[in-house]
Amino acid sequence: MEETEEIEVLGSEPIYKGKIFDLSIYDIRHGELEYKREIIEHNGSVVIVPVFDDGTVGMVRQYRYAAGKFLLEIPAGTIEKDENIELAARRELEEELGVTASSFTKLTEFYVSPGFLTEKMYVYLATGLIETAQNLDEDEILSIERYSFPKLFEMIRNGEIEDAKTMCGIMLAGARLEVRF
Amino acid sequence: MEETEEIEVLGSEPIYKGKIFDLSIYDIRHGELEYKREIIEHNGSVVIVPVFDDGTVGMVRQYRYAAGKFLLEIPAGTIEKDENIELAARRELEEELGVTASSFTKLTEFYVSPGFLTEKMYVYLATGLIETAQNLDEDEILSIERYSFPKLFEMIRNGEIEDAKTMCGIMLAGARLEVRF
Repeated sequence: MEETEEIEVLGSEPIYKGKIFDLSIYDIRHGELEYKREIIEHNGSVVIVPVFDDGTVGMVRQYRYAAGKFLLEIPAGTIEKDENIELAARRELEEELGVTASSFTKLTEFYVSPGFLTEKMYVYLATGLIETAQNLDEDEILSIERYSFPKLFEMIRNGEIEDAKTMCGIMLAGARLEVRF
Repeated sequence: MEETEEIEVLGSEPIYKGKIFDLSIYDIRHGELEYKREIIEHNGSVVIVPVFDDGTVGMVRQYRYAAGKFLLEIPAGTIEKDENIELAARRELEEELGVTASSFTKLTEFYVSPGFLTEKMYVYLATGLIETAQNLDEDEILSIERYSFPKLFEMIRNGEIEDAKTMCGIMLAGARLEVRF
């Protein structure tokens, strides 16, 4: 197919309205071809690499039903409707890790499964951390751990970290702070 | 909540059976708490970093309805039911890029949105590439481009690459080939 042909979404059929995402089926016309695509519509997420003054990164170990086990990740959460993205990142950092940050720097943004999922993740580096208090939802199962960058790089290489946003965030924050992977 | 308490999935209600994924609602008991989780069930994906003998990486620029635009990514695709994972990676590499590889090395595996999506991605480094012929599905809109690692690192830093699996795959392949990010 020629990528210069016009692509048009003719309409979409809502299948499910959920708490975290909606599901719709898009009707697409592309040149002379018409087809359908199943799309999960998600409001996007914030991801934070929180680096303490001693150089360690604050991580959360959390039970994930979709994985069927605990995963070690950097703090993250869903952006609420109409919420400012950086404020969402600050909120999640305080809720999950119990810290505020004097400095927030945008590292990157990315899609995680763009074949069918609209979710985009916005990744921040947080430094100048000050401890306040953790404030979890009652159904969150989460403990805090702290690791140095060299240890995290080792855990990326040996498979102990198995979450894409965490790998990307750690490698990009390391490069920004000149602790190269 | 204590993470040592027993977590039990009591059952699940199927909501939608799709082509690429299914949607179910899980009923969960965790200690004295019971709650529901919306879960997208996906068979997993393969991701390939194909490095040509001249050191360039084969990429695909592809229209993504979930993003509403073209994204530059490394080759990837869904694992079919009961399909061997490495064979799925070899199939996708040949279909999308039109090459076979004499060497396939597993780099990593990761979840991409483990809060609600079971999709796991399996990432391979492919070298010793031999050109055959591209073989796309008729609804795939995709062109091939090749970039050096330093150029790809620059495109990760400046936001031209905005796909998590591509960022992770490029950074890990670079480290493996000693072309450091």
